[in-house]
Amino acid sequence: MTYNIGFIGYKFMSRAHANALNKLAMFFSDAPDIERHVIVGRNEPALSKAAKTLGFAHTATDWVDALDEVDILYNLTPNSVHAEPSIAALERDIPVMCEKPLAPTLDGAEAMADAAADSDATAATAFNYRYIPAIQYAQNLVQAGELGEIHQVRGRYLQDWLVDPDAPWSWRNSEKLAGTGAIGDLGAHTIDLTDFLVGDRVGAFDRVSGHLQTFVEERPIEGDGETRQVTVDDAYTAQVEFESGAIGTFEASRFATGHKNDHSIAVYGSDGAIRFSLERLNELEFNGPDTRGFETILVTDPDDPYYDHWWPPGHVIGWEHTFVHENYEFLSAVESGEDYHPDFADGLAVQRVLDAIQRSDESGAWVDVP
Amino acid sequence: MTYNIGFIGYKFMSRAHANALNKLAMFFSDAPDIERHVIVGRNEPALSKAAKTLGFAHTATDWVDALDEVDILYNLTPNSVHAEPSIAALERDIPVMCEKPLAPTLDGAEAMADAAADSDATAATAFNYRYIPAIQYAQNLVQAGELGEIHQVRGRYLQDWLVDPDAPWSWRNSEKLAGTGAIGDLGAHTIDLTDFLVGDRVGAFDRVSGHLQTFVEERPIEGDGETRQVTVDDAYTAQVEFESGAIGTFEASRFATGHKNDHSIAVYGSDGAIRFSLERLNELEFNGPDTRGFETILVTDPDDPYYDHWWPPGHVIGWEHTFVHENYEFLSAVESGEDYHPDFADGLAVQRVLDAIQRSDESGAWVDVP
Amino acid sequence: MTYNIGFIGYKFMSRAHANALNKLAMFFSDAPDIERHVIVGRNEPALSKAAKTLGFAHTATDWVDALDEVDILYNLTPNSVHAEPSIAALERDIPVMCEKPLAPTLDGAEAMADAAADSDATAATAFNYRYIPAIQYAQNLVQAGELGEIHQVRGRYLQDWLVDPDAPWSWRNSEKLAGTGAIGDLGAHTIDLTDFLVGDRVGAFDRVSGHLQTFVEERPIEGDGETRQVTVDDAYTAQVEFESGAIGTFEASRFATGHKNDHSIAVYGSDGAIRFSLERLNELEFNGPDTRGFETILVTDPDDPYYDHWWPPGHVIGWEHTFVHENYEFLSAVESGEDYHPDFADGLAVQRVLDAIQRSDESGAWVDVP
Amino acid sequence: MTYNIGFIGYKFMSRAHANALNKLAMFFSDAPDIERHVIVGRNEPALSKAAKTLGFAHTATDWVDALDEVDILYNLTPNSVHAEPSIAALERDIPVMCEKPLAPTLDGAEAMADAAADSDATAATAFNYRYIPAIQYAQNLVQAGELGEIHQVRGRYLQDWLVDPDAPWSWRNSEKLAGTGAIGDLGAHTIDLTDFLVGDRVGAFDRVSGHLQTFVEERPIEGDGETRQVTVDDAYTAQVEFESGAIGTFEASRFATGHKNDHSIAVYGSDGAIRFSLERLNELEFNGPDTRGFETILVTDPDDPYYDHWWPPGHVIGWEHTFVHENYEFLSAVESGEDYHPDFADGLAVQRVLDAIQRSDESGAWVDVP
Repeated sequence: MTYNIGFIGYKFMSRAHANALNKLAMFFSDAPDIERHVIVGRNEPALSKAAKTLGFAHTATDWVDALDEVDILYNLTPNSVHAEPSIAALERDIPVMCEKPLAPTLDGAEAMADAAADSDATAATAFNYRYIPAIQYAQNLVQAGELGEIHQVRGRYLQDWLVDPDAPWSWRNSEKLAGTGAIGDLGAHTIDLTDFLVGDRVGAFDRVSGHLQTFVEERPIEGDGETRQVTVDDAYTAQVEFESGAIGTFEASRFATGHKNDHSIAVYGSDGAIRFSLERLNELEFNGPDTRGFETILVTDPDDPYYDHWWPPGHVIGWEHTFVHENYEFLSAVESGEDYHPDFADGLAVQRVLDAIQRSDESGAWVDVP
Repeated sequence: MTYNIGFIGYKFMSRAHANALNKLAMFFSDAPDIERHVIVGRNEPALSKAAKTLGFAHTATDWVDALDEVDILYNLTPNSVHAEPSIAALERDIPVMCEKPLAPTLDGAEAMADAAADSDATAATAFNYRYIPAIQYAQNLVQAGELGEIHQVRGRYLQDWLVDPDAPWSWRNSEKLAGTGAIGDLGAHTIDLTDFLVGDRVGAFDRVSGHLQTFVEERPIEGDGETRQVTVDDAYTAQVEFESGAIGTFEASRFATGHKNDHSIAVYGSDGAIRFSLERLNELEFNGPDTRGFETILVTDPDDPYYDHWWPPGHVIGWEHTFVHENYEFLSAVESGEDYHPDFADGLAVQRVLDAIQRSDESGAWVDVP
Repeated sequence: MTYNIGFIGYKFMSRAHANALNKLAMFFSDAPDIERHVIVGRNEPALSKAAKTLGFAHTATDWVDALDEVDILYNLTPNSVHAEPSIAALERDIPVMCEKPLAPTLDGAEAMADAAADSDATAATAFNYRYIPAIQYAQNLVQAGELGEIHQVRGRYLQDWLVDPDAPWSWRNSEKLAGTGAIGDLGAHTIDLTDFLVGDRVGAFDRVSGHLQTFVEERPIEGDGETRQVTVDDAYTAQVEFESGAIGTFEASRFATGHKNDHSIAVYGSDGAIRFSLERLNELEFNGPDTRGFETILVTDPDDPYYDHWWPPGHVIGWEHTFVHENYEFLSAVESGEDYHPDFADGLAVQRVLDAIQRSDESGAWVDVP
Repeated sequence: MTYNIGFIGYKFMSRAHANALNKLAMFFSDAPDIERHVIVGRNEPALSKAAKTLGFAHTATDWVDALDEVDILYNLTPNSVHAEPSIAALERDIPVMCEKPLAPTLDGAEAMADAAADSDATAATAFNYRYIPAIQYAQNLVQAGELGEIHQVRGRYLQDWLVDPDAPWSWRNSEKLAGTGAIGDLGAHTIDLTDFLVGDRVGAFDRVSGHLQTFVEERPIEGDGETRQVTVDDAYTAQVEFESGAIGTFEASRFATGHKNDHSIAVYGSDGAIRFSLERLNELEFNGPDTRGFETILVTDPDDPYYDHWWPPGHVIGWEHTFVHENYEFLSAVESGEDYHPDFADGLAVQRVLDAIQRSDESGAWVDVP
């Protein structure tokens, strides 16, 4: 069977997923057959151009119509558009890959997770960083007990594209369109990655204390003379305690001058530790029972996760490859009917942590994660 | 005039300061003349041996007697012994260099700061990390506005010497003797360093949210068969907000596997950023208006802070050199009568932040720093 | 016009180029239209499978026949097969992209360069590392004079896949099939990259002193019980002097334990310096007039070479992307008729340096590069 | 017994050794008792000042007279003054610590080694980098076979203090006073360190190919208007082959922009590899049988070489500490009468390699090391 794929959205994330789909046949020959069938958007000329570039056969301006034609839906829209089409697809048992965070509000995320629970179709939340070989290698180390009992976690996601107060306003600065700022856009990744790496060992996030800050209150509208209110956070910080008693600190910022896309995570256990940074995504730093310091491992050997599909050792891969792995696993799960993670329930779990951090910021007190 | 120096304590910190005093004549020829006169301790044989090794002319087992003979007192004892001799010395207008943190409790620190305020003598808190050339270079950059408006700070102090649950109990694990654990021993340094680097720009610590955790509840007594309760924290984390609205995260741990003495601080401003780690204390990472990434500066040029006293560029110095600089400045201030910082008021200010973090840990809510 | 592309060879390099061609439409929309038309090899079943995976419409077992059908030829074979098909294609004015080094012997390379000179078709040598954004950024710095007068160069290419004496014999260990070992396979890249980066500033390689070494004299044939002679070098080193008086050291090894694919180059000038390593190919270390130490630049901004075609800053690319850039430039030059570099003359120039290094190794004396 | 120490020379190296002697009592309590007795120089006022600063009881303007008073002689003069006083002392069985390189010419070094062979006194060449804890830790790894059979070595010593063509002329630029430039000043260290680390495994330096280059031919005399000829090398490179067939590359430069004192060495064996850089002298990078990548080891644990004498883990030491270790071992050997290395024969062996590199530079051919 060849699956007809439909995308809603035709910008950054659509390029990332279209590129991934385009590479599957060459590098993952046992991936299900797919056709980039229809791409949905409202701006016709831009959409037509994108369809051509991204290799889609058809375009549509209404996602409702598109649902009739597709076997699998990719929801690659701004956060405020995540819920409705995803739920509609799931109600028709159409598998969905939805970008993260699941929804701008916890209510929205719960409705989506409910729809997924009621559906026979696979519902994926697009936490692509689970698919970095170095991250999966790290998870294997943790699972195998190489780090012993986990005591502490530190996660941070640093960018600097808003540090200039004249950087233009975008939908990412709007509570209405994005829900939140750095915490939802970046923090969602970190919370999910933490759960992926150590969740089996430390249990769920038990309670959190959070802080959100907006450094620049309004920004210019591009090509206008006006400014518009920034209604989301520029940065957040959080302290957490896990069920096991392990503790952690979390942080994201769009004001971290000198950092472009530094998603870093460190885990400290009784027998070892790991450190990872997205800007050097082929590397993992590992301290274990047989090492004194941190060893820098280039996770590009044939027996490393996914690497037999790619190039010889040391011929490094990039950010886009995480999407290839993600799509391979998602499509394979759709075809086989096997469980897929991160699913919508995983996406909702992340959202619950984010929501608790926000509530803690408002109340000034620690908040239990439900 | 030659100053007679008296030390109370003859262990780790006494070696650090005695070595510093021993080096002054050779490397800081304009430092005041001093004599290592008397060293005070309770274990006579060990004390005699230490006196010989550390170059002291006399020993004493009672600090009260020793006060009659000394021009300057170094209080290098465990935290619980900081207050009484320091206050007694200041009441007699004898200058004091006291190790950090100032006292195990806020009350004790307040009494010490009061005594210093009432005394004509110099009262120094031994925050030696202010005297790292790379740190002073960094402070100069911040003061000169090279980083612009400061938005975020991240400080952490990572060690791993307690991660083994069989590591023996010591006074550092006792609330009675040490007051606190990682927060007082390590966190005190980080809070002071932050204030030193950016205090003029972001104002005081305004409010904090803290978390203290003890991972191993009891530890074996060395050469015994018994165990003893750990009554202090193994690690702490904190979120802070400064008066300016800048935010920060702080953390220390004795369970950070793979780290020996990693005291790191990062500062992000609107125009630049700096990063520093104590394990590479000759280096500063700097991102500024003229750089895209972080530049690794070896702060060992003749025009770098204190470096004209030492070696040619790239002939690096070590941890002990911070004490030489500290003692040079302290003794010079004693002689000249000029203000010295960090003084006891600075030590108290740090203690107030630490106390607020602890109270926040107890209450589960943000706490204003008085 | 749509160009019919033919590949000779269907292994490692063919995957790299096929992937590049497959990505052009999505990321370089102004690239010429191409069709992956025919792929040539001798093992029919493996070839058919490769054709399917790599997206070729047809297969052929004789490259002579294939020449009738193709508009552009990619010669992606072992070194000993480079000359004949490339020359035949050029004689018919069919553009050729040939893998490096140009030929196993200097004679072969000269014949190929002669054929290119006599042909109207573009003849490219596949030195893909010229197409790393960080390398082009570095070249721009050198060209702009940011490094001043160039004094010294250091190039090395370190791998470790032969350090195990039981690693199996392959064509890369055979003088007959490969011509040389590390020097041709790895050294060719370094010599070309050096010329690309600083050739305009230091002139040609003037004279060289070389050393080739084989550490393991014979290796097992896989799945056999026999061994076979290693007739090429495992490692080479060289000292060079350029026309300007600048000097350099070069080195490659397949025995550099702990290194997978570390192609590094450093350039020191009177005003600045650069350092690059292929294992961190998104980064360039730069010391310039405004920096004291080396600044680590993530060369992933929209105005960096080729990066406007890819992802937002810090969303790093990988080794394979160099082939996309290379193919884009090559195909654009084929279409426009403009000059393309590195061409066969550039490939021959590299070969002359390698040959001089080998002759120096034999004679034990410095050798002038013709 | 208390040994009367005499220094000839009162500048950079004298400060380094005087500081070391001053620290011995505090940190190496079993070191022989010494007195800083007499310091010899020609400029009386400067000498008196140095004597006071460096802690010497007496001064002398003629080293011949001084020999009557000293038990141990430190020859810390420019290279051209190494031979005569050292030989005179040894003839009187006075132990000598002489700075490196042993002499400006091979003849001089041979005479010195002959004098040492004929003397009952200890004769030390001051290769202080053997005394870095990380280097001794590395040597232990090599000796223990952790790296397996050694294949390749790379040593380089990079500084940049002459890259400015207006940097003033000094004795270090004079063949008459210094013998050579970068090769003798910096290369001597690298050759000795290589022999120390791997000599037992790879045998002696068998043959070499060398290259010396002077980039700036004359330099201004400070506070003058005149210039003076530079008669030594600014940089050298070399290729070597060891008796075992292992190979290496060596390099030093005073024109390596961005490097202050980067003495680096890398060793590659069949089972592992090490990398070291002097600018981070507390660290060793190690790849071994149990690691995939390079592990960064902070060599500051109590069971690391010499570290039980210093500070807790992670409280790093500096360049000057190498002299403390060196003097401790030298003085202990003087007292015990046991063999000491590096002795004058070791210094001569280094000089023979340097001389062969220079002769190779002149002849343009490989030269056997005698």
